[in-house]
Amino acid sequence: METKPSEISSSKMFGGYNKRYKHFSPTLGCSMTFYIYFPPSPSPSHKFPVLYWLSGLTCTDENFIAKSGAQRVASTEGIVLIAPDTSPRGLNVEGEADSWDFGVGAGFYLNATQEKWKNWRMYDYVVKELPKLLSENFPQLETSKASIFGHSMGGHGALTIYLKNLDKYKVSVSAFSPVANPINCPWGQKAFTNYLGPSKADWEEYDATSLVSKAHDVSATILIDQGDEDKFLHDQLLPNKFEEACRSANVPVLMRLQPGYDHSYFFIATFIDDHIHHHAHALKL
Amino acid sequence: METKPSEISSSKMFGGYNKRYKHFSPTLGCSMTFYIYFPPSPSPSHKFPVLYWLSGLTCTDENFIAKSGAQRVASTEGIVLIAPDTSPRGLNVEGEADSWDFGVGAGFYLNATQEKWKNWRMYDYVVKELPKLLSENFPQLETSKASIFGHSMGGHGALTIYLKNLDKYKVSVSAFSPVANPINCPWGQKAFTNYLGPSKADWEEYDATSLVSKAHDVSATILIDQGDEDKFLHDQLLPNKFEEACRSANVPVLMRLQPGYDHSYFFIATFIDDHIHHHAHALKL
Repeated sequence: METKPSEISSSKMFGGYNKRYKHFSPTLGCSMTFYIYFPPSPSPSHKFPVLYWLSGLTCTDENFIAKSGAQRVASTEGIVLIAPDTSPRGLNVEGEADSWDFGVGAGFYLNATQEKWKNWRMYDYVVKELPKLLSENFPQLETSKASIFGHSMGGHGALTIYLKNLDKYKVSVSAFSPVANPINCPWGQKAFTNYLGPSKADWEEYDATSLVSKAHDVSATILIDQGDEDKFLHDQLLPNKFEEACRSANVPVLMRLQPGYDHSYFFIATFIDDHIHHHAHALKL
Repeated sequence: METKPSEISSSKMFGGYNKRYKHFSPTLGCSMTFYIYFPPSPSPSHKFPVLYWLSGLTCTDENFIAKSGAQRVASTEGIVLIAPDTSPRGLNVEGEADSWDFGVGAGFYLNATQEKWKNWRMYDYVVKELPKLLSENFPQLETSKASIFGHSMGGHGALTIYLKNLDKYKVSVSAFSPVANPINCPWGQKAFTNYLGPSKADWEEYDATSLVSKAHDVSATILIDQGDEDKFLHDQLLPNKFEEACRSANVPVLMRLQPGYDHSYFFIATFIDDHIHHHAHALKL
């Protein structure tokens, strides 16, 4: 099985290209797809900084590319967008597709420790395998300059990956409507129980609110947009818990509550330019 | 069955709202959905001009709203977007879903004359029923100021509806990758044979290239964008036939061949702002 990515589609947009690739992932034990948006290049030897987008529950690598409109400003800012899928696919683990909020499409960007879900290692896939694969196969990417953002489950994934890798290469982080404190909400409790087992100490290793309260040396402001008519706000997302933890730990956070907006890509598309600018500013320092 | 539209969803975007409605259509004999994008309103009594978008084969009322990014500039220009569905649904006509390019999702914006497809009256639905319904139910719309555009089958629908109603209310027209001369391409020949019967004279009543060659008093420039890597360009779309007919009939046309672009919404999203500005300019004269 081929671990080297092969191009499966290419569409021009805003002067650049949305390209979709397929490869076999040794980390996950299955074939995976991801999208790269390449902005127009000023020269053949130009290298672009990269911005990872992590999607939410039920999404694939396609939703962000089709619906966010991020490519417009990524083109003018000269930033590459990377959109991975949200879980392993095609493994036929019993019950993997029984719930929309668990299993397929619901990797939660962690490394599962429970035998049944041993292939669910989206943390290692996003943090280790994918950057290495990109670095080895796409010379036009400056993979050492990388920032990360995402939506809902993926917004949380972005926050945790950033907070767990402050000493490494991640430059800046932002999130739309993140599942900000999963150990205290039904989506998170269901996923973490199944993937990580019953110990809450293990859960805290993948909880953004727990992680930020122990964070040191977060100097770049964390940008979060949240719609105040998001139907998941009060039961599942709990951004106020994350904001409180940031304040206690003296971590700079800009939490913007956007009146009237819901949890959809319509909300994301409205504010995506601000997030791209936020990351472009950090990546170009 | 209720002909008055009822709201079935509402999502804020770029300060305005994407609202989806459902109603029973007497013209088509089935329940239909459509989207309206309302930009932010400067006052409760403000009336907006309207811009109809007609989608292509296989699309519903949702594709344009989810993928085009048109709402951003519609908001700043103060224009309402209307996105109807592409055919009757749920009638269970034998064979209606056997082909992706005929039947359900493939109304071709004409009035079928053949008994089997008697409900396929998308021309009357878009030209008569929908404007009346909008005028009667949405006081914030200035439905007498209306322009029209679309993509592929819908780009062709926009051109034909405009050319057949020059004496009425349509202000301007534009199209992305229109099926510009359907009587001379496989998609059109299949649809027109089934919907309209064997007479080519009847087909010409719904063929943009035939219509424009007989047009009088087209003063506003027709804007067309076409990707030169569109895989349907040479067999199905034939924009050169339409352009030639425009030149012969002295109809002003701006045909832009966009290098590297394909037939997708990635292409549409790239140039949608230009089209919105084109219509805004005409609607505000």
